[in-house]
Amino acid sequence: MRRLPESELQAVADAVRAEMIDAVSITGGHLGSGLGVVELTVALHHVFDTPDDRIVWDVGHQCYPHKILTGRRDRIRTLRQGGGLSGFTKRSESVYDPFGAAHSSTSISAALGMAVGRDLDAAAARQNGLPARKRRNSIAVIGDGSMSAGMAYEAMNNAGALHSRLIVILNDNDMSIAPPVGAMSAYLARLASGDTYRSLRETAKQLGKLLPRALYQRAAAAEEYARSLVVGGGTMFEEMGFHYVGPVDGHNLDHLLPVLKNVRDTEQGPILLHVVTRKGKGYAPAEASADRYHGVVKFDVVSGVQAKAKPNAPAYTRVFGESLIKAADADEKVVAITAAMPGGTGIDLFGKAHPDRTFDVGIAEQHAVTFAGGLATEGYKPFVAIYSTFLQRAYDQVVHDVALQNLAVRFCLDRAGLVGADGATHAGAFDLAYLCCLPNMTVMAAADEAELVHMVATQHAHDAGPSALRYPRGEGVGVELPERGEVLPIGKGRIVRADANPRVALLSLGTRLAEALKAADSLAERGVPVTVADARFAKPLDEALILDLAGRHEVLITVEEGSRGGFGAQVLHLLAERGALDAGRVRVRTLTLPDLYQDQDSPEKMYAQAGLDAASIEKAVADALPVAKAETEEPRGDNVVSVRRRPR
Amino acid sequence: MRRLPESELQAVADAVRAEMIDAVSITGGHLGSGLGVVELTVALHHVFDTPDDRIVWDVGHQCYPHKILTGRRDRIRTLRQGGGLSGFTKRSESVYDPFGAAHSSTSISAALGMAVGRDLDAAAARQNGLPARKRRNSIAVIGDGSMSAGMAYEAMNNAGALHSRLIVILNDNDMSIAPPVGAMSAYLARLASGDTYRSLRETAKQLGKLLPRALYQRAAAAEEYARSLVVGGGTMFEEMGFHYVGPVDGHNLDHLLPVLKNVRDTEQGPILLHVVTRKGKGYAPAEASADRYHGVVKFDVVSGVQAKAKPNAPAYTRVFGESLIKAADADEKVVAITAAMPGGTGIDLFGKAHPDRTFDVGIAEQHAVTFAGGLATEGYKPFVAIYSTFLQRAYDQVVHDVALQNLAVRFCLDRAGLVGADGATHAGAFDLAYLCCLPNMTVMAAADEAELVHMVATQHAHDAGPSALRYPRGEGVGVELPERGEVLPIGKGRIVRADANPRVALLSLGTRLAEALKAADSLAERGVPVTVADARFAKPLDEALILDLAGRHEVLITVEEGSRGGFGAQVLHLLAERGALDAGRVRVRTLTLPDLYQDQDSPEKMYAQAGLDAASIEKAVADALPVAKAETEEPRGDNVVSVRRRPR
Repeated sequence: MRRLPESELQAVADAVRAEMIDAVSITGGHLGSGLGVVELTVALHHVFDTPDDRIVWDVGHQCYPHKILTGRRDRIRTLRQGGGLSGFTKRSESVYDPFGAAHSSTSISAALGMAVGRDLDAAAARQNGLPARKRRNSIAVIGDGSMSAGMAYEAMNNAGALHSRLIVILNDNDMSIAPPVGAMSAYLARLASGDTYRSLRETAKQLGKLLPRALYQRAAAAEEYARSLVVGGGTMFEEMGFHYVGPVDGHNLDHLLPVLKNVRDTEQGPILLHVVTRKGKGYAPAEASADRYHGVVKFDVVSGVQAKAKPNAPAYTRVFGESLIKAADADEKVVAITAAMPGGTGIDLFGKAHPDRTFDVGIAEQHAVTFAGGLATEGYKPFVAIYSTFLQRAYDQVVHDVALQNLAVRFCLDRAGLVGADGATHAGAFDLAYLCCLPNMTVMAAADEAELVHMVATQHAHDAGPSALRYPRGEGVGVELPERGEVLPIGKGRIVRADANPRVALLSLGTRLAEALKAADSLAERGVPVTVADARFAKPLDEALILDLAGRHEVLITVEEGSRGGFGAQVLHLLAERGALDAGRVRVRTLTLPDLYQDQDSPEKMYAQAGLDAASIEKAVADALPVAKAETEEPRGDNVVSVRRRPR
Repeated sequence: MRRLPESELQAVADAVRAEMIDAVSITGGHLGSGLGVVELTVALHHVFDTPDDRIVWDVGHQCYPHKILTGRRDRIRTLRQGGGLSGFTKRSESVYDPFGAAHSSTSISAALGMAVGRDLDAAAARQNGLPARKRRNSIAVIGDGSMSAGMAYEAMNNAGALHSRLIVILNDNDMSIAPPVGAMSAYLARLASGDTYRSLRETAKQLGKLLPRALYQRAAAAEEYARSLVVGGGTMFEEMGFHYVGPVDGHNLDHLLPVLKNVRDTEQGPILLHVVTRKGKGYAPAEASADRYHGVVKFDVVSGVQAKAKPNAPAYTRVFGESLIKAADADEKVVAITAAMPGGTGIDLFGKAHPDRTFDVGIAEQHAVTFAGGLATEGYKPFVAIYSTFLQRAYDQVVHDVALQNLAVRFCLDRAGLVGADGATHAGAFDLAYLCCLPNMTVMAAADEAELVHMVATQHAHDAGPSALRYPRGEGVGVELPERGEVLPIGKGRIVRADANPRVALLSLGTRLAEALKAADSLAERGVPVTVADARFAKPLDEALILDLAGRHEVLITVEEGSRGGFGAQVLHLLAERGALDAGRVRVRTLTLPDLYQDQDSPEKMYAQAGLDAASIEKAVADALPVAKAETEEPRGDNVVSVRRRPR
């Protein structure tokens, strides 16, 4: 790449683009973002000495061209498949990926850390009288949508004060996943407005400021003045301590290459290079509908038609959106909040029905939660629809602003549990642990799409404090949907399956219920009668139900789509506190996600790996059951505990 | 207040200031921030119709004058005492506190939520043909230090786009708790620079822009132009969609009152009013040393001398700071990061010893963590020193940027457990739950200050992945400090006390160890022999130790300074998984913080309320022990389980 003459780079870009379209048409994945940065990616790898120079791609949606160019072309058709390439940057995958990213707006912080590391290396070398190593460049490439997140601002604020040589490339395509919102977005639009980009000559003037001061000192004052009058450009970034360069056409290599070289060669402190690109560039269907081609399933390259399989059942996301619309139809206090994910959360549907009560705050989870808290203090019923993994961004706000004040904010956690192709970064694995520990919080999980309808109604009715409702990615199980949701009693579970003289109780939280029922059927066929219960609530627990299950079964197994420390832990705490384990009459096991980050695969395979499919549940029962069941009326006690599981 | 003539307001302010100084001299608490906003508080309550108009005080440090003026003067000397007034705003305390705050930078989000609630109320009234209610004002008062947090930016970004009538008062005292850092701070300093504030006439011009457009349209363009040339003032806020007014002298009621009235009466969208104040204003010792008088203990009003009791033992914070200095003396890869809390975390000490390796990133916990992640990728050993409660702000960064990538960032969690006077908002109650669930994470807790020394050394040596070390607020227990820290084996606990033929095992994590030992001594005196172990690690668990304890005791009780779902939960998961509970040979109980937010009191009283002092531990043992100990060689089994605790 770096040895290629510049005249050949557009051909490289064209090849990368064609390869990428073809690959994603087979694998599905993020299409538009990558297409928008093909030229930029080629130019960066040509101008910069990667991997010694560090390029951190924000959020990673746009990294497929980068992967193609950095030794992963032969595996590009394994993107997001089990055992294949990750859909995001990943340190373990390539030395060209200095930082993994899949959540937004982390790149400036990470790249600044790398820049400071380089500066410390250089200082140490000087101090130790060692020769200075080649100065590494540290580059963050961040989209305009990601700039709405507070984290990006925090990093800019710090970088602007540290004066370290950091290069931030703002990839401005006027889009994130959804159309952009927020004042920063409007500001960027003003910067990039008009029909022309900054001319090369004008850009050279900007860059002049970055070259040694002696040469440019006199020119600087006059030029600065002119600049502010003519374009008003980048003032905000300049005020934040950055040198602003741009806007530059991100699809024009003749412009990109000299600007990048100048940026590379300057000695000046943090630089923000504003590059304007078009999402989906070079693929007509994606250019025409940037949001629909942000993330795609398999599609036909010629027509652009996405080959969406006919679903067997409505998706949880859609069921949620429609349930919330019904709640809002009946109650004008219902409002919905999304952090830049209207489509992913079903808030797009809600927004069509109730536009005035729909708030897309941008990629700003922290603000989303406390904004909802403010609305709750005024008597509104805010529903914050958010992926489980992204609520991690607002944990302190959940704790300090909502739960501690006992405000009735409703958290609706989509993508709870394992998520398939998006892999470990998007798994909703920890919400049960990080929410169940909070006083005042009610936590429930839907076992199927009908339960989801009831639980949205339950959240709507529950005005006494905050609540969280979790449900998975993907389609429901196909049960009939109720016409209207029923308000469930808080903290009450249900028995779903009862056998006579049961030996085993399976206590499921969430959509593993179907697998638990399968396991139960199989066990019953093998002569082991099983009770299956749906806990519905992880907090407050249905204490009577759980103590009853523990009291009349030999084995009690909890099943949940979350890490240790969540539902099963709460059940164990309860049983221990109440002495229900003291007599050794029930053997308790907790099935949770394993203590590792699972790489992407189909959700079914991932759950099997996790030991949470029907076969694994059945095996857990078999391992826990006493080997010989005594034929007495009181089969539980010392006579059956002689076989203990060996430690794994 | 609102009926008082303006001429009498300065006298009110003077009285409030005197009252506040006297009260805080008795109670201790936040002094400087409140003194800086006395005139602003008086002016706000005079001009605005509180509590119908909502005033949200950011972080709450500065709310004492507000409390004095809103019906709490008679209780002001109970500030931060058990049963007394909270040191922060608190909804349950007064209708004049529409939002509780003690963590920084939440006010704009909350106030925007309230403003939008008001707008929705008005729209609904219009739609239903009802008379419009009086338009409530929604006001956030936020310090310049708080503006470095991403959350404030997210809220501004959203507010600037929503055009709702929100008033943000930027209380610029060029300070947060420590001297300010970051580019935003430098920007504000430029805005407020020069020796004069904006004159009333100039301010009137700014305000003119906010009045009906028809009147001011022609003037606007020219004036805007002039403004940008003359003062460059507030451009950044204007770009974010706010109307910028200021800077105004926050101690001059003649300036404040007319400006506030104008701001109140305008119809225009979000307004940022830049008020410049002096921290500690009106109390010479506090003015002279704003950081030392940010938070104070009891002090002598005349001399300003803080009556700090001679400590019995060094504080954990200091021991941490000194240990980290030693690590850095020996290893140039050690770097320290604080989010605007150098004094509170001991990083001030570190900064004196190693200024080049000390990074205060401002109130920016999210950035702090990922910045550390970037440094770790370059081979540095970053120690992020942070309060347990504030790490909640960066939970996603801990998960996604650090733990998932297995980067060896060291989290040093000060103020773990209950914190006393700062109350529920500052309790470090949840870190064990939210960290132990994370794959790759090592979690340890120091039992005393000598253990802390060893554990800092252990973190330093542990380069295989991320680690968290928790320790409490306050003084150690007075044990001798080792000359140098010893690297502890990861995941290994220790037996601290052994009796012959023990019946009870107390497994402590953290500084409850002293109470566990007291309880053990008392139990032993009563004829119940006790083993006491210090787990040291909550993750990975010392499985051999725990299984051994469970195997040879009748009762095993875990003790921790954290919520359910943390250490005790991990122990229960382990015991259940290994079948160690199946035979009913050991009764396990988990002592944790209770499932509620505890109001402030002395830490000792709070721990007693929580059931985590020696007496409570002893009682838990007594409740769990079988009533009659059989005199056989095998005392454990069905013969001793007849007495079960009644459910509480």
